[in-house]
Amino acid sequence: MGDRARVEQFCADTLGKNPLFVCTISGTRTSRIPGITVAGANPELLKATPAADAELLFYGKCLSIEGIPATPDGKPTPALITRTALTLADIQFLIVDSGAEVKPKAPYISMGVPGPSEDITTGKAIDEAVVKTIFEYGKILGQKFSYLSDYVVLGESIPGGTTTALGVLMGVGIDARGRMSSSIPDNPHGLRNRAVELGMKTAGIGLGDLKRNPLRAVSVLGDSMIPAVAGMAIGAGRRNWVVLAGGTQMMAVLAIISGTEPDALEKVIVATTTYVANDQTSDIGWIIKRIGRVPIVAADLGLSESGKPGLRAYSTGFVREGVGAGGAALAAMLKSRGAISTDVLWKEIEQNYLKIIESPLQFVRSGSG
Amino acid sequence: MGDRARVEQFCADTLGKNPLFVCTISGTRTSRIPGITVAGANPELLKATPAADAELLFYGKCLSIEGIPATPDGKPTPALITRTALTLADIQFLIVDSGAEVKPKAPYISMGVPGPSEDITTGKAIDEAVVKTIFEYGKILGQKFSYLSDYVVLGESIPGGTTTALGVLMGVGIDARGRMSSSIPDNPHGLRNRAVELGMKTAGIGLGDLKRNPLRAVSVLGDSMIPAVAGMAIGAGRRNWVVLAGGTQMMAVLAIISGTEPDALEKVIVATTTYVANDQTSDIGWIIKRIGRVPIVAADLGLSESGKPGLRAYSTGFVREGVGAGGAALAAMLKSRGAISTDVLWKEIEQNYLKIIESPLQFVRSGSG
Repeated sequence: MGDRARVEQFCADTLGKNPLFVCTISGTRTSRIPGITVAGANPELLKATPAADAELLFYGKCLSIEGIPATPDGKPTPALITRTALTLADIQFLIVDSGAEVKPKAPYISMGVPGPSEDITTGKAIDEAVVKTIFEYGKILGQKFSYLSDYVVLGESIPGGTTTALGVLMGVGIDARGRMSSSIPDNPHGLRNRAVELGMKTAGIGLGDLKRNPLRAVSVLGDSMIPAVAGMAIGAGRRNWVVLAGGTQMMAVLAIISGTEPDALEKVIVATTTYVANDQTSDIGWIIKRIGRVPIVAADLGLSESGKPGLRAYSTGFVREGVGAGGAALAAMLKSRGAISTDVLWKEIEQNYLKIIESPLQFVRSGSG
Repeated sequence: MGDRARVEQFCADTLGKNPLFVCTISGTRTSRIPGITVAGANPELLKATPAADAELLFYGKCLSIEGIPATPDGKPTPALITRTALTLADIQFLIVDSGAEVKPKAPYISMGVPGPSEDITTGKAIDEAVVKTIFEYGKILGQKFSYLSDYVVLGESIPGGTTTALGVLMGVGIDARGRMSSSIPDNPHGLRNRAVELGMKTAGIGLGDLKRNPLRAVSVLGDSMIPAVAGMAIGAGRRNWVVLAGGTQMMAVLAIISGTEPDALEKVIVATTTYVANDQTSDIGWIIKRIGRVPIVAADLGLSESGKPGLRAYSTGFVREGVGAGGAALAAMLKSRGAISTDVLWKEIEQNYLKIIESPLQFVRSGSG
């Protein structure tokens, strides 16, 4: 089936149906390399970004930090978009923790991973046995999710995750250097490439050396989000459609699926935002073609229309995607049979932005949590 | 609606439908009082019983211990029954950890409770703020579960749990001394009563002093399973039927629901085994009448027919119930519209007993997990 036909089949199968949105939160010490990520206003807050993203989905506010996760210059987390889409369409969600440094103040599914994986420049990101366990747990969970919903939408929150994703892609032979997306317009390709190259050198690994052992590529150069989401996609895809909701980070997930259970790719589509799909500084289309025939759908969040500079910034190269925002938007559109349009969505995102970000109450919140 | 009418309505609403079974695992240091529980062959194994029960549901074998949980004289865990019922009827399950000492080697939902609550003889079982958080998380989860299934069945695994349940019941004014069920025929009422009485004395609490603050009763004399399951029942009961699957331990859960959101009781039924319902050494019927109009259904597991002494022992006063065995059996009967009868069930339990307990492979398992 061609990409277009597969997307049409996916839409026909899922229109008006009940998805389950699952956000996997995780951590990698790679995110501490200065300049590699802006998914937090400072290094201390960065540690809590995935937990705070999860809390925002649950409560419409964060408990582990003051305010909400933002870039150092105040661009808000895409969790705001995800929260809006899920709430508007009454879509259920679960949080999976696969190694977040701070755990969310909310119930979450544990993969038994106490904290973040190592900086990939060490060439030893995660113990390989742990990667295999996470992958198996992911399959178990994915299968359960497939019985509890009509289809699953898998998002992530892991600061620094495009660097670890590049590591895994390089390990399995896809030279995506210069093609990964970033949350700032001045995409730090050089920094990211050097981190991966150093990790490969330390581990004595060349491009594609781990093509036949993709889980080892995760162990050497990846993070603990990747095997969790890959496992869930495989487990859920045995029964239902699976939406990988994210940008170039999800390419590493796809590579793991492709290298372990390639047939599972037939039930997968990637959903992201137009801000990733149309990014001139990255090339998700180039990467995906090297992995397999998996269609990408890009949701237009309409944020270029917003009067709020922090939201409009999404359309000028900031943040772009994360916390499954594009996939959550797509799922909201599908569940509502189009009633939740781009216009409905960005206006509601703006309302939530006003409520959550610009509320004078945010600064007294720590006393009420 | 009378009890009988409510059970009929419940059966009409759930026949052939898809339940979600949720087992909450937990721990209390009260279980270390010698003689208070036999839910583990020795004190070291006792700590791992809830995790091992969860693993048995996932894998049909345990990873955290050799063999499977058993009483010191070898009566097998009721998780064997639960596993059989869920597998036969293809019923989905999730594990919630609310303070187990050993965490299962499987994905589970975390309530953020690192370990067991204190021995209730201290009169300070759990911090009250933690009890409230667990209760709120429970409500959130219960609501999610209600959207992911047609109804929920809530079981538990917490050694020593009838003692903490008695503590909560006494705190809210139900003098259930001498009426709690036990996993041995020689029901240790005296030991259990003395533990609760000591805890009450230490805390300066008299019978019924915490009637208006049932969560405080949990904090002083309870365990962290109780608020978790009570919260889930309330959250799920807003939309669907809720089955509290267990014996006298579930009476403490009912008391919390009754004392916080009594309307929620209308969507609750209790399901247990005939081995609890017909127990001459305890009186679940007496207790439930003091709480509210909640019907009890007892599933006949048919184990008196079994040729295996370890299983037949269930019908002569050993183990009786646990891990939601009675509720899982009921759910299997309902989902299969009766095709899974008592006879089908006990024969399959026996088959699994043979496979799991009597397999010569069990003693080499630690190397293969």
